[in-house]
Amino acid sequence: MVLLGDDASMRLLEEAEGWEALSDLALEAHGLLIKEPGPPEIPGVTVDTQEQDGITLSRVFIESEEGARRMGKLPGHYSTLEAPQLRSRSVEMEEKAGIVLAQELRRFFQALGVGPEDETLVVGLGNWNATPDALGPKVVSRLTVTRHLHRMVPPEKRGGLRPVAAIAPGVLGLTGIETSEIVQALVAQLRPKLVICIDALAARESQRLGITVQIADTGIHPGSGVGNRRLGITPQVLGVLVLAVGVPTVIRAATLVQDALSQMGRPAGPAAERLLQPYFHSMIVTPREVDDLVDSMANVVAGGLNVALHPSLDVDDLLSSLF
Amino acid sequence: MVLLGDDASMRLLEEAEGWEALSDLALEAHGLLIKEPGPPEIPGVTVDTQEQDGITLSRVFIESEEGARRMGKLPGHYSTLEAPQLRSRSVEMEEKAGIVLAQELRRFFQALGVGPEDETLVVGLGNWNATPDALGPKVVSRLTVTRHLHRMVPPEKRGGLRPVAAIAPGVLGLTGIETSEIVQALVAQLRPKLVICIDALAARESQRLGITVQIADTGIHPGSGVGNRRLGITPQVLGVLVLAVGVPTVIRAATLVQDALSQMGRPAGPAAERLLQPYFHSMIVTPREVDDLVDSMANVVAGGLNVALHPSLDVDDLLSSLF
Amino acid sequence: MVLLGDDASMRLLEEAEGWEALSDLALEAHGLLIKEPGPPEIPGVTVDTQEQDGITLSRVFIESEEGARRMGKLPGHYSTLEAPQLRSRSVEMEEKAGIVLAQELRRFFQALGVGPEDETLVVGLGNWNATPDALGPKVVSRLTVTRHLHRMVPPEKRGGLRPVAAIAPGVLGLTGIETSEIVQALVAQLRPKLVICIDALAARESQRLGITVQIADTGIHPGSGVGNRRLGITPQVLGVLVLAVGVPTVIRAATLVQDALSQMGRPAGPAAERLLQPYFHSMIVTPREVDDLVDSMANVVAGGLNVALHPSLDVDDLLSSLF
Amino acid sequence: MVLLGDDASMRLLEEAEGWEALSDLALEAHGLLIKEPGPPEIPGVTVDTQEQDGITLSRVFIESEEGARRMGKLPGHYSTLEAPQLRSRSVEMEEKAGIVLAQELRRFFQALGVGPEDETLVVGLGNWNATPDALGPKVVSRLTVTRHLHRMVPPEKRGGLRPVAAIAPGVLGLTGIETSEIVQALVAQLRPKLVICIDALAARESQRLGITVQIADTGIHPGSGVGNRRLGITPQVLGVLVLAVGVPTVIRAATLVQDALSQMGRPAGPAAERLLQPYFHSMIVTPREVDDLVDSMANVVAGGLNVALHPSLDVDDLLSSLF
Repeated sequence: MVLLGDDASMRLLEEAEGWEALSDLALEAHGLLIKEPGPPEIPGVTVDTQEQDGITLSRVFIESEEGARRMGKLPGHYSTLEAPQLRSRSVEMEEKAGIVLAQELRRFFQALGVGPEDETLVVGLGNWNATPDALGPKVVSRLTVTRHLHRMVPPEKRGGLRPVAAIAPGVLGLTGIETSEIVQALVAQLRPKLVICIDALAARESQRLGITVQIADTGIHPGSGVGNRRLGITPQVLGVLVLAVGVPTVIRAATLVQDALSQMGRPAGPAAERLLQPYFHSMIVTPREVDDLVDSMANVVAGGLNVALHPSLDVDDLLSSLF
Repeated sequence: MVLLGDDASMRLLEEAEGWEALSDLALEAHGLLIKEPGPPEIPGVTVDTQEQDGITLSRVFIESEEGARRMGKLPGHYSTLEAPQLRSRSVEMEEKAGIVLAQELRRFFQALGVGPEDETLVVGLGNWNATPDALGPKVVSRLTVTRHLHRMVPPEKRGGLRPVAAIAPGVLGLTGIETSEIVQALVAQLRPKLVICIDALAARESQRLGITVQIADTGIHPGSGVGNRRLGITPQVLGVLVLAVGVPTVIRAATLVQDALSQMGRPAGPAAERLLQPYFHSMIVTPREVDDLVDSMANVVAGGLNVALHPSLDVDDLLSSLF
Repeated sequence: MVLLGDDASMRLLEEAEGWEALSDLALEAHGLLIKEPGPPEIPGVTVDTQEQDGITLSRVFIESEEGARRMGKLPGHYSTLEAPQLRSRSVEMEEKAGIVLAQELRRFFQALGVGPEDETLVVGLGNWNATPDALGPKVVSRLTVTRHLHRMVPPEKRGGLRPVAAIAPGVLGLTGIETSEIVQALVAQLRPKLVICIDALAARESQRLGITVQIADTGIHPGSGVGNRRLGITPQVLGVLVLAVGVPTVIRAATLVQDALSQMGRPAGPAAERLLQPYFHSMIVTPREVDDLVDSMANVVAGGLNVALHPSLDVDDLLSSLF
Repeated sequence: MVLLGDDASMRLLEEAEGWEALSDLALEAHGLLIKEPGPPEIPGVTVDTQEQDGITLSRVFIESEEGARRMGKLPGHYSTLEAPQLRSRSVEMEEKAGIVLAQELRRFFQALGVGPEDETLVVGLGNWNATPDALGPKVVSRLTVTRHLHRMVPPEKRGGLRPVAAIAPGVLGLTGIETSEIVQALVAQLRPKLVICIDALAARESQRLGITVQIADTGIHPGSGVGNRRLGITPQVLGVLVLAVGVPTVIRAATLVQDALSQMGRPAGPAAERLLQPYFHSMIVTPREVDDLVDSMANVVAGGLNVALHPSLDVDDLLSSLF
């Protein structure tokens, strides 16, 4: 599949076939800072945590530049839902988590001024053929899309019917096109009020895999490691509102080791990180039950989106909406 | 998955989830006319047939409006490759058919004035999740894409490296967006010289399934039955050159019956057709070995495209290029 | 993949890769006879039909040799469930049909003397990689198996816990082993009280596809066309009770044509059949939406089996049991 | 899917759904011992290493009980093929590695006294639906099976045609039957001369993933951690010759950390291991490109087996034999 002969092109190819985005969770960015006893005050960062039925919902609001710098994240709102009971992979828990996700999505809609009939484009980032990266495409395949029906329904019957479109465009290595370029082209054509991007993320702590969903109103920013060639999928780039829904499906190997060292009472400082870097560099790992994990989290996210996007869809229909 | 309650919306939904395109083969359109002994002269239609190594290549050129009307096809060039030995589903025959396809594609490139470095966008029409309709997405997943590499290669090294992009956008029922709209948006963004659409077709004769590839320079026109809502993917609509590569993977049930009646010496006239219509209406059938058939034809088409698009790719690399 | 050079071996290979079983529905065998007005009396054949909530349940009992000869089926009990509403492919209808199937399966268990704790082996016949033939393996992958748990549970807690084992052994062309041999080997090793075989069938009438399930207590008999090499999966061969659960997923092409001819008022007699034979011979067709059809019917069958086999599983859990 | 209500049954279920086997590589068992400078002499263990075209072939022979105890492996022959160039995932390297594998398999056949016409049963262990564990089933699906053809070929034409059967029986959590029980049942029925088991393994060093194949004449022994409920697939249990072909597709998380610590000059002693145990316990990780890795290694193993098992299959046919 490699057309050019030299090493450089091989390296470029690898990079190009790499994942689109591997942002960390805002919660973890903050979490690392607050490991010390006593809640720290990071100027310009507000954290609010609620619990309900075993599901924890944490809202991080980064409002100042200093807060953004110290968190390593853009200013904006980040909500993280954690449901440890999802580890049982039961349909009941998927449904429960999907409903909490729907409620939080509607809260974002309201804050952003997205009305119940405003057109929405959902973009499933990632690669159908790589299990840990297939979350976005899987969610898209389970959505209730309505944009094409909307045009056929007489206006007097459209009450509460939101036009929803969805696409899973594939990754740069398979398309030759930056995902951001594809989304820009579609936004110019469809002119939706809101774009929702679904993506797989990297977690810093292995116990967050398969139980966590994050919503952010900042869009998706490609990792700094891949150079400035990569464009973000952000309100600034697209000129419309953007929500990012992310689910951690992998962990960085280096992170795993640092976790273990802390656990052993031997926290790894920057020196350790420098030592680990050449050994693990970009190695990303995933639990072996990754197929079940991705499938189940796709149910949670697609179910939550279906209920949040379609006000006329009863909460009881969440599960049925997936098939 | 149905949001609206009434029958009408159900019908609309079914229509919307229907296949994008089910054109017939030009060869068959002509074939039906020439079944009588003695080659007929259809004014404005030229037919040229060659054979090589058991592969038949037929070129139909419809140059007049009358020819177009009598053929039921747009004016343009249609080349059809038939390789009965593909029924063995051997890798060797796939490779052989892929090379003939590549040669014919290059002939089209030359006739259209597409140079070896002109940017090309390949669009795989159809639905990943419906086996007989998955041909387009399968071909896209096996292409050698280079557009993203092209920008990284210094101009003095780009000799013969064509920028190729590819996408499998999904079908209306899954995206809520007409495929034609998605392609228009991408053409506006990428400004390629040529768009190549890959699609599954319906054959009129069952023995053509799984051994036939058609190239046409007219683009893809949705069937008339689905109303004027549907836009074509044509040079007129897109404003760039368009080639359509089609592979028959299904047969219309009514066609199958008419075939059988002719075979029995009881050809079905228009009266029979009227009788069959309500019984079979839009029923489409596919052989039970459809998984193998689609997989194998995707190898032929992707291999042929890889060799035709990348002049520096050796013919011997055709097979390897697929994996 | 062909190792031997001559035509004969190719033919043998094709035969070997053929489907394991393509029996017709008992209901249809009878149906063809009763097309004349007035219910006919076939000696030794009893038919009883009930309807409930739009689901028709027909019980055919062939008790005499003459009845068996005239029906072209072995003596035994055949129950056929038809749910036209399944065409909507809604989760609700799958659940409803699954519950009716579970009730009928329990009726067979009772008639055969299979108690709630008797060990059962479920065998999913067919080929994972051929969509219309993948029904059996799909059902097996969604079953609640318990045999391995049973041994770990103390006897005083086992009340109502039936040991259920399941396997999808693959087809002769992929294993080199007759499925009947594999089942015999497992029966000798596990000594279950009951074997339940799940298989895809051929229907005679296209409108039965995707809405029908048949249960029979006669087991599975390979078609006569493949010679006496093939062994059945029957009570006689295995020495244990056998139930066959069949779902039509394909139609014979010749049948389709005969249907159409009747519809047109030109019924095809034996002469027509002789004419059609060489043209269509063994051609089997399937609707293009075969992926959805097989997936949905696998839900119905697996859900019905889970509820029937596990008395402690609440009917409300039918849907959840599939994931 | 959980039928019993208490925690204990959940634990049992998890265990039952666990992987069948996660042995370590013999090479690594030895490797850990010989990390010190100067080749150590482990009494009763012989190591022989060759290199050819960038492929390293290491043969470890454990002949004494003491050697077995110190290696933590049964007495027997272990050959390990390492081809770092497989990281390119090119078809050419897959073919090259497949041929070396075939040669080494034939060396085992000769040493064990398996003649060119002796019946062989290949068993693909693992789970179709869990990517890192799907190696065995994938290999089986690409094998050239011939047992069913053999019986149809007249004896005078059978020269060099070995009857090969193959099965991928599934894992305990999906079947309720120990894989060892299924293989025992089939061996009793088919009476092959040789059983070859294909399985995914855990590697101790991450750089071995995706480039390594191990052959052993000791069969497959389930890990000691899963209790004595699990039976092995060994010559002793089956009463026939057994070869195990293993490919590392995962790493234990704890191993990864210990690797990193050594790399950082802080080797983890037994104390560290005790600290890590509760944190990572049985966590197994896999690289995110696991789909490609498994697919490519299945090509190597299936191609190597096809050539080794069928003397009449030309080496040039290796690649074609896979499709």
